[in-house]
Amino acid sequence: MPTPFCLCQCKMCRVPGSLHCHSHPNCGAPRHRPPTSPSTLAEPQVIHTLARLRADSGSHAPSVAQLECAIPGLVQIDACFLANPYATAEVMNRLQTIPAAQLARMVAHYPSQASVIASSLAPHIGVPAECLHLANGASEVIAALLANSPGRLLLSLPTFSAYHEFAAGPVMTLQLQDSEDFRLDLNRLEAMVRRASPQTVVIINPNNPDGGLIPHAELVGFVQRVHSRVNQIIIDESFSHFASETPPMSLAPLVPDLPHLVVVNSLSKSHGIAGFRLGYAVMSPERVYVLRHSALWNLNAFAEWFCGLLGDPEFHTDYETARRRYIRDTRALFAGFDELPNVKTYPSAANFALIELDRSAAEVVGALLARHGIYVRDCADKRGLDGRRFIRVAARTREENRSVLHGLRSVLEQPPIHPLATAVRQRQFRSDVVASARFG
Amino acid sequence: MPTPFCLCQCKMCRVPGSLHCHSHPNCGAPRHRPPTSPSTLAEPQVIHTLARLRADSGSHAPSVAQLECAIPGLVQIDACFLANPYATAEVMNRLQTIPAAQLARMVAHYPSQASVIASSLAPHIGVPAECLHLANGASEVIAALLANSPGRLLLSLPTFSAYHEFAAGPVMTLQLQDSEDFRLDLNRLEAMVRRASPQTVVIINPNNPDGGLIPHAELVGFVQRVHSRVNQIIIDESFSHFASETPPMSLAPLVPDLPHLVVVNSLSKSHGIAGFRLGYAVMSPERVYVLRHSALWNLNAFAEWFCGLLGDPEFHTDYETARRRYIRDTRALFAGFDELPNVKTYPSAANFALIELDRSAAEVVGALLARHGIYVRDCADKRGLDGRRFIRVAARTREENRSVLHGLRSVLEQPPIHPLATAVRQRQFRSDVVASARFG
Repeated sequence: MPTPFCLCQCKMCRVPGSLHCHSHPNCGAPRHRPPTSPSTLAEPQVIHTLARLRADSGSHAPSVAQLECAIPGLVQIDACFLANPYATAEVMNRLQTIPAAQLARMVAHYPSQASVIASSLAPHIGVPAECLHLANGASEVIAALLANSPGRLLLSLPTFSAYHEFAAGPVMTLQLQDSEDFRLDLNRLEAMVRRASPQTVVIINPNNPDGGLIPHAELVGFVQRVHSRVNQIIIDESFSHFASETPPMSLAPLVPDLPHLVVVNSLSKSHGIAGFRLGYAVMSPERVYVLRHSALWNLNAFAEWFCGLLGDPEFHTDYETARRRYIRDTRALFAGFDELPNVKTYPSAANFALIELDRSAAEVVGALLARHGIYVRDCADKRGLDGRRFIRVAARTREENRSVLHGLRSVLEQPPIHPLATAVRQRQFRSDVVASARFG
Repeated sequence: MPTPFCLCQCKMCRVPGSLHCHSHPNCGAPRHRPPTSPSTLAEPQVIHTLARLRADSGSHAPSVAQLECAIPGLVQIDACFLANPYATAEVMNRLQTIPAAQLARMVAHYPSQASVIASSLAPHIGVPAECLHLANGASEVIAALLANSPGRLLLSLPTFSAYHEFAAGPVMTLQLQDSEDFRLDLNRLEAMVRRASPQTVVIINPNNPDGGLIPHAELVGFVQRVHSRVNQIIIDESFSHFASETPPMSLAPLVPDLPHLVVVNSLSKSHGIAGFRLGYAVMSPERVYVLRHSALWNLNAFAEWFCGLLGDPEFHTDYETARRRYIRDTRALFAGFDELPNVKTYPSAANFALIELDRSAAEVVGALLARHGIYVRDCADKRGLDGRRFIRVAARTREENRSVLHGLRSVLEQPPIHPLATAVRQRQFRSDVVASARFG
């Protein structure tokens, strides 16, 4: 529990029983020194180092770069990270052939303003240019949308924590239930909208961290029914490219007719380019106008170059091949999860799955990293998830997925060091039911 | 003049007699089509294309990438752009040797959070890590600092327009006079502070667009005197690396003792890496804390990589050599400006000079671009500069500077097509006086 001396509200200090952050000004917990020689790190030290790095990351998981810095050579497979590696490979093929003179110009010069890049990208996305705002990652546009709407915000939980953390006003939550596979009940959400008249409603589809999918037609119906009651309906489609081998379904084409609808997308996941920082929102021209005038040169030269690539038909063809291949490998990984001992895997239409454990997530994450070099997401800090019994595992390449399955099985077959003493141990894991409920 | 149908307040529509923007929702001016065949462009068409691109850029000058797109192959020398090309070359030498696997990891993965990168960069900048906030370009941190301070903002004019445009509250201005070489009188500024108690005061040193320098000791004295009267004193040192061949003077070391002081720096100019988008502010830990919690993953992978480079002693040595070489070439360019016919050049301690013309800036900018492929900054939209009689010309490599001088001389020796009929023609250009007043 946080000591009376710790007034910090960061994600590390909030989690009951966790190590403290030791970094924010209000954290009063005594400082621990990190191990001085990474080569001598044992499993408990890996767990402690992970906890320390999570605190330093401010929010969200530590990056592989941070892990590399703290424990060089430890991470062999990054299954924390939610992106398509085959798409990255397609981008790399093009990036490495940029002529030196062009690259020097990209490095030296200011990129174009986001409005200029949006004009050229809009036809590719299939929306009017005046409805497209490009951002320094989806997180930038999420922060701006919420900062401009300080009224009540309605979210389901668990969900992507940035929506909660960037809220500028009171947050109302609809708690998703593990007993219902975290399924979002749109009728309940609609009732909350009618009762409480929030300024903003957010739905991530498929949701993060569980991957639950709302069918397109149901979501369209919901948005049309509540549209006049809410000032801003944000639909985050960051994982929509993983939901089906058929072309992704988007609500973006509805924006010109539904001025309160905002469709957010992150290209980091679908196209494997998180390092470029590029995301967008499709929304009314009035909303675009406001955001464009609050940022200057917010896209870097590599994001601008990549936007040009998105308009290249040959790249598009290769990307679609990479997307379908990744979806097939992801489904094979999920089938493997259903064979794991002592866990429940939740149905997912995204490129990751939420796995419920019979022991603490920190124990499994540390063991996977220390013994197998596999990095998965400890969900202990996720609002709306009960405690520390969940990990989120992302799909990688087919070969890496095999290693992830092998590592997970090896760790989970061992008796737990710190078995969970609460509800989890009493749960009946129903992997047969889960498997039949899987999407796609 | 704007027609009664145009309610747009963008920089294009604000300038009396200019072409309109044709792009913002409130612009009612009839649309012009761009020329269909760039190869047939004549000088008036270049001028028109430039005007159209400036409107589309939202604010600030169109990028070379936009010009390339509109008129391929036209720009040979970008003397609009304010960065050290020798520093870019040093960065390129390192960028091109990144191993493919590392580059792929940079592209695919989320970079570290800004707080993590700041911890490793702080020793290089010579400030405590908790006082350093890294941003997606200096413009991001400027926008955030002003958004969080909606009280009165005191600026001198002319200055970098972002400070005016990002203001969240009323703006008070101290007009700098061309008759005084745009020198900022700190006594007058201090009197305004005492009289009006602004929440924020901004000083850019050297100033943009004229390059005027306030000596370090005078600025320190001013900050210490007004510190208790202002909530936020922003000193923007984006051009400080060009002021002298001796190591740059910074107010950043004073921040731990002066909690209202904020020192902003853009690495785009000094290190020639505008495409990476990287800037910072040194300020109190409390201010850093607020900004860190309003942005996620705001730095891209290339900016993170470059921060690592800043800590490399070998790179530092090579950068310092590049910096001193660039300053010498800049001074030689300025000496050349003093020989130009029919202009006045203002004293500058930056890497650019403000030049006052006997004809419209648009005419000179268009002629330089169409006839010589040289792109310089038309200052017609700069608040606090009288009309359209100023251009700002940046130093490039020694060879490019020679071409710029040749092009300028060639254009200015021709009789003006549209001579300025107002005060400018009555001015006595005093290049001998200006030359003796030059810094350094």
